[in-house]
Amino acid sequence: MPDNGSLRPGFAATQRSRVRRHPERAHYDRETVYAILDAAMMCHVGYVIDGLPYVTPTLFWRDGDRLYWHGSSASRMLRAQREGIPVCLTVSHVDGLVLARCAFRHSLNYRAVMAFGTAHVVEDESEKEAGLNAFIERLYPGRTALMRPIAAQELKATMLLGMAIEEVSAKIRDDGPLDLDIDHGADCWAGIVPIAQLVGMP
Amino acid sequence: MPDNGSLRPGFAATQRSRVRRHPERAHYDRETVYAILDAAMMCHVGYVIDGLPYVTPTLFWRDGDRLYWHGSSASRMLRAQREGIPVCLTVSHVDGLVLARCAFRHSLNYRAVMAFGTAHVVEDESEKEAGLNAFIERLYPGRTALMRPIAAQELKATMLLGMAIEEVSAKIRDDGPLDLDIDHGADCWAGIVPIAQLVGMP
Repeated sequence: MPDNGSLRPGFAATQRSRVRRHPERAHYDRETVYAILDAAMMCHVGYVIDGLPYVTPTLFWRDGDRLYWHGSSASRMLRAQREGIPVCLTVSHVDGLVLARCAFRHSLNYRAVMAFGTAHVVEDESEKEAGLNAFIERLYPGRTALMRPIAAQELKATMLLGMAIEEVSAKIRDDGPLDLDIDHGADCWAGIVPIAQLVGMP
Repeated sequence: MPDNGSLRPGFAATQRSRVRRHPERAHYDRETVYAILDAAMMCHVGYVIDGLPYVTPTLFWRDGDRLYWHGSSASRMLRAQREGIPVCLTVSHVDGLVLARCAFRHSLNYRAVMAFGTAHVVEDESEKEAGLNAFIERLYPGRTALMRPIAAQELKATMLLGMAIEEVSAKIRDDGPLDLDIDHGADCWAGIVPIAQLVGMP
């Protein structure tokens, strides 16, 4: 059975990861963090070059407390990250629009994870090949057996980056509108409009 | 008619914004950049505190070449940004999984924008109120007329941040698998699995 994190201790809420706003929506246990990460394909990786922030959307996958992403060996993002720089890898899911009876109380239902770590490049050829195949298998179980192995020049042209989750927090809002009593007479509909990412048929 | 940017000159591809990988997928014209931004509700804002990267998912909206986001006046992100720090605001849409006949050629269809600018806080009360109401109207046209105005203490509790787009690029992949001739005999299905974000019924 894959490790869903439920039997292991949670992460510590640190100076960097602790959720300040709505701390009641914060989660630091592995089961919640893993579930939000694993429900996503895309993450947004933040990093700093010459003091300036960059945020690159990219596909990623998880193996225990390690997160991986990949790309071209010629990519500016990956070349910057291979030196072992700090990154913030953020994942978000939009679950619903929350319409309240006054502007201020409008909100969003969402699940998000901010994971902090240090990017490193996976140099070892067999670890790299296994990692890339794990990525294919994660999205398309059984598919690597139907295709030829990754060629040497393809492996060389691909950079695999990884990071251990050093600090992390999850934040979830899953509730209806939290209207004030004085606004319940307002002449407008209030409630949740659900939003979901759907995978269609080819 | 709202300005869709089609009649105005494009943005310059700068050292920071120029797309290196697959430059044929890059776009710098306002019409494309605006369309990708306006199709999204959520963005990921990257910023630097004490040299470390942070990426916060947040709702945003656009007015011409200006982007806005908001939150609690007590938010760490917004307090850091109000000082006028550089930010990278990234938007991405996942449009499809591209399954190819070898691992290396697997890809993703997507639309993304990376916008660079300097965050500033909107202090002027009437500009702030107008901005927040524009945000509600953008998502729910006509709704502000059904609700009471934003109260003074609500306005005070909310911080409105904005930035002018200083540099920006869009990147789009919208294609099937680009397989090598040698792989066309592979015994696996190849094609596009569409993905979309759907807004449901309440």
